[in-house]
Amino acid sequence: MPEPSEFMARAIEIGCKAMLEDGAAPFAAIVVKDGEIVGTGVNNVVNNCDATSHGEVEAIRDAGRNLGTWDLSGCELYTTCEPCEMCVAAMFWANIERLYYAATLSDCEAIGFNLAPLTAMVRSDLNDRALPASQLMADESRAVLQLWRRQPGFNAF
Amino acid sequence: MPEPSEFMARAIEIGCKAMLEDGAAPFAAIVVKDGEIVGTGVNNVVNNCDATSHGEVEAIRDAGRNLGTWDLSGCELYTTCEPCEMCVAAMFWANIERLYYAATLSDCEAIGFNLAPLTAMVRSDLNDRALPASQLMADESRAVLQLWRRQPGFNAF
Repeated sequence: MPEPSEFMARAIEIGCKAMLEDGAAPFAAIVVKDGEIVGTGVNNVVNNCDATSHGEVEAIRDAGRNLGTWDLSGCELYTTCEPCEMCVAAMFWANIERLYYAATLSDCEAIGFNLAPLTAMVRSDLNDRALPASQLMADESRAVLQLWRRQPGFNAF
Repeated sequence: MPEPSEFMARAIEIGCKAMLEDGAAPFAAIVVKDGEIVGTGVNNVVNNCDATSHGEVEAIRDAGRNLGTWDLSGCELYTTCEPCEMCVAAMFWANIERLYYAATLSDCEAIGFNLAPLTAMVRSDLNDRALPASQLMADESRAVLQLWRRQPGFNAF
């Protein structure tokens, strides 16, 4: 079984290559199951026109495609940088069981990122966020949720 | 310019149709710019083998593809259910400026979702989370971030 540092070295290589060859940000991630790489991803926000294209999210998507399931129980995720809250929540939904990271969010702040507004937003309740939010048609949507609960194969996960 | 409730009704319809025709969860979202729908998405976690395939994330990705940019400044997002923290963070990264929601996360809990562990995870610092995390090769990754800062067109966003 390869050492964790071998997977991390591979993730750093992938990020560095994406930066040098594709003008991407050098953030990359790898999903590993039973000592094998099952998914890789790089941050491709600009090239993909996709604000959600962080390395961790892309690696989770790639692993899901490769394994044929959204459920990455039993998997570890290696990322070249401590994940933002979007990626932490993505790992939660994917059932990732262990995280290895290299640089930190403080290292990102040292090169110019301002992450405090994101942290403030995800740690606030809906009506206390900087993002203005209004509720509409709650009854109609709740009625659909109640219908869903009665569908065959319903599963809240 | 259509009323906000017209966009929300459309989102609820899209979610309901996905549930009835594709066996998807009935969570859907729409991105609107200047009174026009520029992106739509449904929760397709199971069908897409993608734990990140929430309605809001898919709508942000669709809008990015349609507009040719990750930056959804000036856009509003309509979602049939209050967004989870992954989707809130995705909206942050996409520069979504206003949120309309119908059902709430409490309505989801009423049909069986357990969201407290997600909230606890994103509101905790790295070493206080239920997800075990280890740091490896920080110096190497930090060195790549410093290289990135010197690349032409570098932008921390």
